[in-house]
Amino acid sequence: MNEIGGYDFEDLEAGMSASFAKTITEADILLFAAASGDINAVHINEEFARTTPFKGRIAHGMLSASMISATLAGRLPGPGTVYLGQNLRFKAPVRAGDTVHATVAVKELQPEKSRVVMSTVCTVAGKVVIDGEAVVMATSRARRVAECADSAGEPAITSESIEAQRSCR
Amino acid sequence: MNEIGGYDFEDLEAGMSASFAKTITEADILLFAAASGDINAVHINEEFARTTPFKGRIAHGMLSASMISATLAGRLPGPGTVYLGQNLRFKAPVRAGDTVHATVAVKELQPEKSRVVMSTVCTVAGKVVIDGEAVVMATSRARRVAECADSAGEPAITSESIEAQRSCR
Repeated sequence: MNEIGGYDFEDLEAGMSASFAKTITEADILLFAAASGDINAVHINEEFARTTPFKGRIAHGMLSASMISATLAGRLPGPGTVYLGQNLRFKAPVRAGDTVHATVAVKELQPEKSRVVMSTVCTVAGKVVIDGEAVVMATSRARRVAECADSAGEPAITSESIEAQRSCR
Repeated sequence: MNEIGGYDFEDLEAGMSASFAKTITEADILLFAAASGDINAVHINEEFARTTPFKGRIAHGMLSASMISATLAGRLPGPGTVYLGQNLRFKAPVRAGDTVHATVAVKELQPEKSRVVMSTVCTVAGKVVIDGEAVVMATSRARRVAECADSAGEPAITSESIEAQRSCR
């Protein structure tokens, strides 16, 4: 583990997984509309949404997808993870009241740059609503040691180099 | 155009593009954290975020990505569009105060299922922060005509078939 509770690259093995679940509420959909600027009628206008194939308001697909990001950043690999890429396939709509379960699993480890390919899936009552893959860069003990060695010879005159040396103690 | 102001598949040509810009505020980041459940310290804890390579709080990558969704659903193809998939590559961090410009462009038209491959990019001050591609299903005049023909012989005993016949007038 790293200092902030995330898994280092060296801790990860293919097949490790983590989940995060959250009930999507009407409030979440409105907060997401405000933050994203996506005020499409299918998300916020029940009268209109009833006339669509969805037969009522649905959550933004990216709202459920953002729970994948929450799972990667919060659970596995967890704090310190850098998000490099994400593929998403939207399979089924999510409605207010649905509980979305986001599950991520280590699929492939790429040691050269501490990159990890993660499978990412969101389900509602066992049904897949989003699937896809993420690519992240995990923290790495080997990289920390190398960076400390690089910084050891530099004078500690900037906040950055002071921080780097502090983390080497 | 369809009845709700979106482009039909038949209106689209490769190269058509649309943009949506929004300044990302601290409030957006907090709203997004609440809606997504992603309360990672790099987004909400300035003291911690200063110790990371980002040197301060950054917006959730998915917050900027959600502006792509807003542009597809609101502008091109616009209302009526069904979001099928999205690939994202996160290239650079976005901070509160940055104005994100999301631009989508028609890349490839797949007539069989009215599918459209769209290039999708987010920039801040001209620098790419996210790029990728979306796959959407646009509304289609040809499909509406076919669906009206299918429903014409059915008795109008459900709200759905009444709606279908109404849209055929």
